[in-house]
Amino acid sequence: MTLPKPYQQKNISTKLYFQSSINNLNELVDINNAIIITDENVFEKHSPKFKSLNTIVINAGEEFKVQETVNSIIEQLVNANANRKTFLIGIGGGVVTDITGYVASVFMRGISFGFIPTTILGLVDASIGGKNGVNVGLFKNIIGTINQPKFILHDISFLKTLPVQEWSNGFAEIIKHAAIGNKKMFAELQNNSIKIYQKDIKLLGNLLEQNAKQKLKVVAKDVYEKGDRKHLNFGHTLGHAVENTYQISHGQAISIGMHFACKLSEEVLNFSQTKEVNELLVQYSLPTHINFKPKKVFDVLVMDKKREQGFVHFILLEKIGKAVIKKVSLKELKSFLISFSKDEI
Amino acid sequence: MTLPKPYQQKNISTKLYFQSSINNLNELVDINNAIIITDENVFEKHSPKFKSLNTIVINAGEEFKVQETVNSIIEQLVNANANRKTFLIGIGGGVVTDITGYVASVFMRGISFGFIPTTILGLVDASIGGKNGVNVGLFKNIIGTINQPKFILHDISFLKTLPVQEWSNGFAEIIKHAAIGNKKMFAELQNNSIKIYQKDIKLLGNLLEQNAKQKLKVVAKDVYEKGDRKHLNFGHTLGHAVENTYQISHGQAISIGMHFACKLSEEVLNFSQTKEVNELLVQYSLPTHINFKPKKVFDVLVMDKKREQGFVHFILLEKIGKAVIKKVSLKELKSFLISFSKDEI
Repeated sequence: MTLPKPYQQKNISTKLYFQSSINNLNELVDINNAIIITDENVFEKHSPKFKSLNTIVINAGEEFKVQETVNSIIEQLVNANANRKTFLIGIGGGVVTDITGYVASVFMRGISFGFIPTTILGLVDASIGGKNGVNVGLFKNIIGTINQPKFILHDISFLKTLPVQEWSNGFAEIIKHAAIGNKKMFAELQNNSIKIYQKDIKLLGNLLEQNAKQKLKVVAKDVYEKGDRKHLNFGHTLGHAVENTYQISHGQAISIGMHFACKLSEEVLNFSQTKEVNELLVQYSLPTHINFKPKKVFDVLVMDKKREQGFVHFILLEKIGKAVIKKVSLKELKSFLISFSKDEI
Repeated sequence: MTLPKPYQQKNISTKLYFQSSINNLNELVDINNAIIITDENVFEKHSPKFKSLNTIVINAGEEFKVQETVNSIIEQLVNANANRKTFLIGIGGGVVTDITGYVASVFMRGISFGFIPTTILGLVDASIGGKNGVNVGLFKNIIGTINQPKFILHDISFLKTLPVQEWSNGFAEIIKHAAIGNKKMFAELQNNSIKIYQKDIKLLGNLLEQNAKQKLKVVAKDVYEKGDRKHLNFGHTLGHAVENTYQISHGQAISIGMHFACKLSEEVLNFSQTKEVNELLVQYSLPTHINFKPKKVFDVLVMDKKREQGFVHFILLEKIGKAVIKKVSLKELKSFLISFSKDEI
């Protein structure tokens, strides 16, 4: 198998290789001066794939997306005599690609890097757009940079070992993409299910490709998130706050966040399709609510990195397929959070 | 006093304000959403200047140019409710401006920053060019980014409290600038001394301005150090290695490194002005030699970040005022280090 022609967007140097394989890596980089970063789960489940690759294995899980892991990787790079021409390749989910991108951005003031995402979330979202970073305490990605990978390569053979919960997690971002900008895809999702996509590799490959392209397109128009890239934060404002506070998965958190944003959209924009969004989330095994303490969540939310003084930029829906940005005052938000948490328990 | 018109170079957004004052800060930034980073020495000696400024004070010294200091600053930024519009201002020597630039580059994926350098070294070199970073063990600046400050403001009233050794340190970089690209300035330096510059504020201001402009010009043509910016590393290859190994100051280290590079230039390029360079270094109270163990220094040198496989890019002199880049094999370098260390003890 040789590499397909890559997909690219103006303004973004990243090349996307769909329907490819990790075996194509040697066509992209000098394997002798490349170092793979992956996590223990991926490495153990796919060890034959890593044969003859220089590999740094990190602990798996969001709790290891911290500076200590970065320090440990940098120490290993130094010991491996890495230099400015060393190429880093992150093979894993969002944690691995975020950390790889961050390390590559700061090691020796920046070296080149690429990704092979191994989760649905990674394939459609986390690997794309150049945002990277690590968490500090409750603050997600409060340290990081924006720096584009040279390539993102899709090898969906990694999905064979993905736990079913991780499929749901990834579909939360796919549903988000549909809700904010693709009503045709929203309809496609309504007609299918995780099981169908798992069986029909072609249908799945096409969905992943569509989503990766949609995200890259939004990013290319607004790399530094001054405008429309903010739409991708739909569901993430409350999402990040409950994710941090209640230790649920990212997909579950933004699913709850999307439901909340739909309710807020009803108030602010007379949005009328909350039911459809909720039903689709449930169809993909995602929760729409959590029993949360509004004050606690509010405190984390206003400390989140998207805050500005006195208000929050909230991404709301006018209708399915059309998102808008609205400033919501902290006061308004607090009272709405209280009523939302009471209403829905 | 109002701000003078800034000096700028094509390709670099940094504005240089010569002959200015910290009191002009409010013309450059919204002081209410600005946070100063300085060190305990500067803060204690100039405390009235920091009145009514939000200030984070770090420990003074190269040994605190490490990730732990970055972590501590980030924690304080979070506690101070810093957001994406917060402006960071580093007021201090190279350690402070390097750390400030690095923190600003990674906090919330990048916020704006500016510098007020308080040392000769800072004014003519460290604050200019966007390189920032921290050390890991013996590896200087092995973590960092290249990211330009919005402004650099010269307020030479800070120099009043600068220890005399720090004057020598800074003049090492000034002599470097002269040696690699400004033979007229080399002659000016030969005709003067630190004492003369300390007394003649106008002569000093002019020298600092000339040096800042020269460095910014080199940087502007080659921000990512693919070519001529490498000339600025004259004296730094051996310099960094002995600085790391023998705990001497940066100025002393590169002074020794410049002497070594001159000797190497004799071998490789028939350079014939080592004596003039050495005499000027001595005139500014800089050492030209240290009793070093060639093997130890070699090991650190080849692990330094400028290495590539099998060779080192060395900056050599053809003549005073004209530097060139030469690849030197590690083997050649090792044997030259041994003979240099024997010759000169």
